[in-house]
Amino acid sequence: MTKKIRIGLIGGGEGAFIGSIHYRAAIMDGYFELVCGAFSSDPAKSSRAGERYHVAPERAYPSWEKMFETEASLPASQRMEAIMITTPNNLHHPQVMMALDKGFHVICDKPVTISLSQAEEIEQKVKETGLIFMLTHTYTGYPMVREARHLVANGTLGTIRKLVVEYPQGWLSAPMENSGNKQAEWRADPTYNGPGGCLGDIGVHAHNLVEFITGLTIEELCADITSFVPGRILDDDASVLLRFKGGAKGILYSSQISAGEENNVKIRVYGEKGGLEWQQQDPNTLLLKMLNQPAQILREGTNYAYLSDEARWNLRLPGGHPEGFLEAFANLYRNVAYDINSHKQGVKPDPAFIHYPTIKDGVSGMRFIEKAIESAHSDQKWIKFMSE
Amino acid sequence: MTKKIRIGLIGGGEGAFIGSIHYRAAIMDGYFELVCGAFSSDPAKSSRAGERYHVAPERAYPSWEKMFETEASLPASQRMEAIMITTPNNLHHPQVMMALDKGFHVICDKPVTISLSQAEEIEQKVKETGLIFMLTHTYTGYPMVREARHLVANGTLGTIRKLVVEYPQGWLSAPMENSGNKQAEWRADPTYNGPGGCLGDIGVHAHNLVEFITGLTIEELCADITSFVPGRILDDDASVLLRFKGGAKGILYSSQISAGEENNVKIRVYGEKGGLEWQQQDPNTLLLKMLNQPAQILREGTNYAYLSDEARWNLRLPGGHPEGFLEAFANLYRNVAYDINSHKQGVKPDPAFIHYPTIKDGVSGMRFIEKAIESAHSDQKWIKFMSE
Amino acid sequence: MTKKIRIGLIGGGEGAFIGSIHYRAAIMDGYFELVCGAFSSDPAKSSRAGERYHVAPERAYPSWEKMFETEASLPASQRMEAIMITTPNNLHHPQVMMALDKGFHVICDKPVTISLSQAEEIEQKVKETGLIFMLTHTYTGYPMVREARHLVANGTLGTIRKLVVEYPQGWLSAPMENSGNKQAEWRADPTYNGPGGCLGDIGVHAHNLVEFITGLTIEELCADITSFVPGRILDDDASVLLRFKGGAKGILYSSQISAGEENNVKIRVYGEKGGLEWQQQDPNTLLLKMLNQPAQILREGTNYAYLSDEARWNLRLPGGHPEGFLEAFANLYRNVAYDINSHKQGVKPDPAFIHYPTIKDGVSGMRFIEKAIESAHSDQKWIKFMSE
Amino acid sequence: MTKKIRIGLIGGGEGAFIGSIHYRAAIMDGYFELVCGAFSSDPAKSSRAGERYHVAPERAYPSWEKMFETEASLPASQRMEAIMITTPNNLHHPQVMMALDKGFHVICDKPVTISLSQAEEIEQKVKETGLIFMLTHTYTGYPMVREARHLVANGTLGTIRKLVVEYPQGWLSAPMENSGNKQAEWRADPTYNGPGGCLGDIGVHAHNLVEFITGLTIEELCADITSFVPGRILDDDASVLLRFKGGAKGILYSSQISAGEENNVKIRVYGEKGGLEWQQQDPNTLLLKMLNQPAQILREGTNYAYLSDEARWNLRLPGGHPEGFLEAFANLYRNVAYDINSHKQGVKPDPAFIHYPTIKDGVSGMRFIEKAIESAHSDQKWIKFMSE
Repeated sequence: MTKKIRIGLIGGGEGAFIGSIHYRAAIMDGYFELVCGAFSSDPAKSSRAGERYHVAPERAYPSWEKMFETEASLPASQRMEAIMITTPNNLHHPQVMMALDKGFHVICDKPVTISLSQAEEIEQKVKETGLIFMLTHTYTGYPMVREARHLVANGTLGTIRKLVVEYPQGWLSAPMENSGNKQAEWRADPTYNGPGGCLGDIGVHAHNLVEFITGLTIEELCADITSFVPGRILDDDASVLLRFKGGAKGILYSSQISAGEENNVKIRVYGEKGGLEWQQQDPNTLLLKMLNQPAQILREGTNYAYLSDEARWNLRLPGGHPEGFLEAFANLYRNVAYDINSHKQGVKPDPAFIHYPTIKDGVSGMRFIEKAIESAHSDQKWIKFMSE
Repeated sequence: MTKKIRIGLIGGGEGAFIGSIHYRAAIMDGYFELVCGAFSSDPAKSSRAGERYHVAPERAYPSWEKMFETEASLPASQRMEAIMITTPNNLHHPQVMMALDKGFHVICDKPVTISLSQAEEIEQKVKETGLIFMLTHTYTGYPMVREARHLVANGTLGTIRKLVVEYPQGWLSAPMENSGNKQAEWRADPTYNGPGGCLGDIGVHAHNLVEFITGLTIEELCADITSFVPGRILDDDASVLLRFKGGAKGILYSSQISAGEENNVKIRVYGEKGGLEWQQQDPNTLLLKMLNQPAQILREGTNYAYLSDEARWNLRLPGGHPEGFLEAFANLYRNVAYDINSHKQGVKPDPAFIHYPTIKDGVSGMRFIEKAIESAHSDQKWIKFMSE
Repeated sequence: MTKKIRIGLIGGGEGAFIGSIHYRAAIMDGYFELVCGAFSSDPAKSSRAGERYHVAPERAYPSWEKMFETEASLPASQRMEAIMITTPNNLHHPQVMMALDKGFHVICDKPVTISLSQAEEIEQKVKETGLIFMLTHTYTGYPMVREARHLVANGTLGTIRKLVVEYPQGWLSAPMENSGNKQAEWRADPTYNGPGGCLGDIGVHAHNLVEFITGLTIEELCADITSFVPGRILDDDASVLLRFKGGAKGILYSSQISAGEENNVKIRVYGEKGGLEWQQQDPNTLLLKMLNQPAQILREGTNYAYLSDEARWNLRLPGGHPEGFLEAFANLYRNVAYDINSHKQGVKPDPAFIHYPTIKDGVSGMRFIEKAIESAHSDQKWIKFMSE
Repeated sequence: MTKKIRIGLIGGGEGAFIGSIHYRAAIMDGYFELVCGAFSSDPAKSSRAGERYHVAPERAYPSWEKMFETEASLPASQRMEAIMITTPNNLHHPQVMMALDKGFHVICDKPVTISLSQAEEIEQKVKETGLIFMLTHTYTGYPMVREARHLVANGTLGTIRKLVVEYPQGWLSAPMENSGNKQAEWRADPTYNGPGGCLGDIGVHAHNLVEFITGLTIEELCADITSFVPGRILDDDASVLLRFKGGAKGILYSSQISAGEENNVKIRVYGEKGGLEWQQQDPNTLLLKMLNQPAQILREGTNYAYLSDEARWNLRLPGGHPEGFLEAFANLYRNVAYDINSHKQGVKPDPAFIHYPTIKDGVSGMRFIEKAIESAHSDQKWIKFMSE
């Protein structure tokens, strides 16, 4: 039988959110098996979580350092091959660096680090080690986001003129960080979270979605960022004007105080010949609006021949059977699994087809956070995205 | 029997768009009767239009100047009492000024003029004459927009933090102004249209909607405006960051090159305690999203006791019977009719209840256009809205 | 100038609902002018209503009989030419018969009468007099309903197989007829309303919509009708299985106890090659779902060249400017105005283009009510629609 | 560590649809591990599929009989504990019977058998063996369906009066069974599929959803079923009127020739005090429409305190992170896993909380199919659901 890829997990203990999502995304399609973890910085908690995750007791490690050391010393046929990093942002850099040094492929949650320079260090390390690094910008895993990318790339919309990307949430409208919500607590503290509040938590997703779908590169930006909730240190709302190379313009709106909003990621892209619209809370639908024609409702489904190969590759079900956030997440795991298996066999899968976000996306995202903050504190209207 | 208010029309001839809308809005509820018009600058066309509008041949005038002169000389019981001005923007100022001078109430389409200073002159003249002036910012006529205003005013949302207003259209994605489309032609020419392209045509609506619903005043703004279509002089796309007195922030997006969009006015307002959302293409619905509660779908209907008096005052039908753009327009006419009738009787209706946009909105709108353009050409990040 | 058609109104007094809708629909586009009325069976109320409707005092009649007598004796250039009948159902037959006898064109609300035989009498009288008779099945006035009809007629969907028509309302979930609601009161009383409760009030609309869009004729039906609210005599809910000539099948669901529903008319039609869907609460949209293709969102707008001529003929506004119930109603008035004017000139407008429901629809609707009730009381599964 | 439950799979080979869904649903949350399978009736195919499913080569069996024999002989610590049956309907009965005889818990796809009497035999066998039997009526796994059940059960809607359940699909609009589509082929053949075409494939889902949400029992029914596609033996469309014990009425519409529809399961339930609406293609939303109040949009999310415990138990993600069909399916597996583990420990979980469809649902579903077919061929209007 084909062996599943052996994977470990850092994070995912009690009260954690994203760790168990990575776990499900990794195992759902049968490509990975969880063999070990450092589930909590508290050894007792890590051990209890190991139980829940069906991990052998001796491989529920008391610390991630210990895990890397021990696993690296196991026989090749047993030791983990890749690691999922789902800890607060400040831990990503040391964990990623050690993982790569020890020879493990890395799957890391976003934002990749707490500074651009850390991200660039990782980029360098990835290059040196030749190992695989995936950054889980989940929204790129949705089939209809891939279809959107396809429609831009094949010129259906014509030259892109304008795009509007939004990521409003409302859950931080009140000072949740003072009421024992663990997720809110570390995100509110720059030490753990890094310099961007809602920028780092969700703004980078919005930015990444723009780059993924359009392939456009920011030339300069102009940001207004705010901390609305009294006492909050980091931004909880950001509005950013974007100018892209080639002349396209954009608006990016990212907020965690947009009361009543859930997780309302939405992107609209307008070209000379038509526009498209995708909304994460109705993810199986992509609206295609060609000039002077009725808008078309593109829908996800393995049976829809009108979809691109890339979209269909990232699907499991026929039309009308909703796939959601976990499936989008699992698509990233599925794609990286192909790449890891190819790596083992010394071949490269077609990069146009087997796609997942990498450290390149991580570097660009950290630059976006830092440049948006720089702009917010500047009187100068436009801040160049790349230093000359 | 109660006499209908006798009204005249400038504009509305062949190929015109907005004139016939004013006509229908004025007569729909039975408050006005059209008695005369200068329907076109071509006397023959004006005469033919008079036929269509069921106007006596001698009152289908060859020019608006002639109409004002002649009507002013008719006996009080016959002459028109108010005038609807639906001509290209550059004509508004001279027509409004003469109408007021001759003693006619004025209903004028937006934008009120082609400059702030012209608008201020009209404001002065309105004050002097004591006559009634309505500016047809249609979207304020929708019942659920009034409900939104009510919910902000009564504190349901708490202090407002963020608002996002959008007005994307796609009809100018191609250079329509070069292909014989009369509506596109004059809008593309600064002489007729004034300095703001999509800003003047639709951006002012978005701006007015913000002021109407929230009562907030802009402190400073930062705009990026663009002419995407080659050869076009005026802007066809604008993105504006807004900062309001008291700390709220906003994004205004107005565009006529958003391919595939129809007339997609939408506003979202977020306060400390909840948010609301209204969209013109589904105008009978207002979403109210209170923190930690299921969102509520407020719907328009004369039978819905949960609506405010102001919303219900602007309704004709029970729930589930859609009212549209013409009814919103007619609400403005209905409200101004009350005011004109009160003016005749020397009384004032409750301004909190009988509401329509006035020259104050016109002045603010022209300031918005001029300041957004000033910002677009400036390297300074924030431009103050009011000169000190 | 072209003279407006002089029209009278029976009904529309205080507490009335549909009368003022007819009034607005008639005057909105400038084709009709209201010259007289019998607004209430109480002469004082009729007089007061005349004031509101801007009717000369002597033409606000104390009774409809008096109105018909008096108006018929006026000079041709002054007397009313057509009458709008908006009274409880039991009055339709005598009023229509007298109107036709006196030479007036008739616009009558639905259901046309309280029995099939009455409807057939009217049909005969219309034939004899050669006068125009319009039955206001409002939903046929919506442009996208006309587009739906066009798409069925031109074979886009292929042979029709199945249709599902629904008309749920919830306003009679409680015994409103016992709490002073005038609209509910007469509808609950068979003397005024006729034998069909929700069948007569809204079921006939659903039935008419099926006939209008598909042109199909019922072969046989099977109905289950219920009076859910204790003490209610007439049905407040009906479910009907339909079999059409040629083999198509259908479901008709009409209800006034579907709690929380507003006025949710919806129809879906499925053919061999595709399906379509229209919903009155979002009336400017028609979904076209062709096999193996993305669904298309057809939208109403004077500027949409992809729409049929018939749909565009019934439009006033460009895309994205919602038209609603009143405009649909006004389309019927506009079409009948063309026919009345043609009648005056002795010509016939193209019946494929100038369309409105007639007494033929009235007869078929009354048959539907009677056959559905017959079926509901029968143990026989299928009841033939036409007697042999 | 907690051991995962060892499970086997019958079906799921090349060209299969539902087998791989069961697989993902079983493993997604980490409760099950696939240890063996009879993936195809072709041994070579079964073996290849075993490879893909990461099953040890010797446990990819050439036949299900062989699998049951062999696994039953393995040591308790290794042998499979439960079996997933995802074969054409005619095989369910022999496979289930043998599985139960050999001591395996059973998870079986629907419809449970090809006759009511077979279903009753299984019911008897389940009782005798005391083993666990789950029937995968997927739609009961959706959290908002459970919330709907909760709202009916706790009286929020008052006494139920009317319900409308729909399951339109369009994929069999053309004779797919003649063009090599394996899924369509066996479904079109009564030998493999049983007597109900769309009734057996999807009608039973609609029927089950009604029973699950409302707890109502059918008293009598009246059905019209059709085979629209020329040459097709089994029904591809069904319309059924329902009468429930206690007086509620219903409409069930199930179709596979509703061209352009995907998998559009929808249910509306109306009570004295309010109504609710759920639609599978937007599964995270439940509309609650209380009389005289704005409708409420209940949304799924682990963070929504307003949801019932049962709904939240079946959730993984916070609001705004869509869960789909696979998660609904996985909820059933999760609930049955609790029950299997309790069974091992000799305890019973709270049946009000740990819920999944059982053989009782299977028996009722088969009765529904048989009674609907009986009705379709009868001239008698109402057919009793239970034989006296």
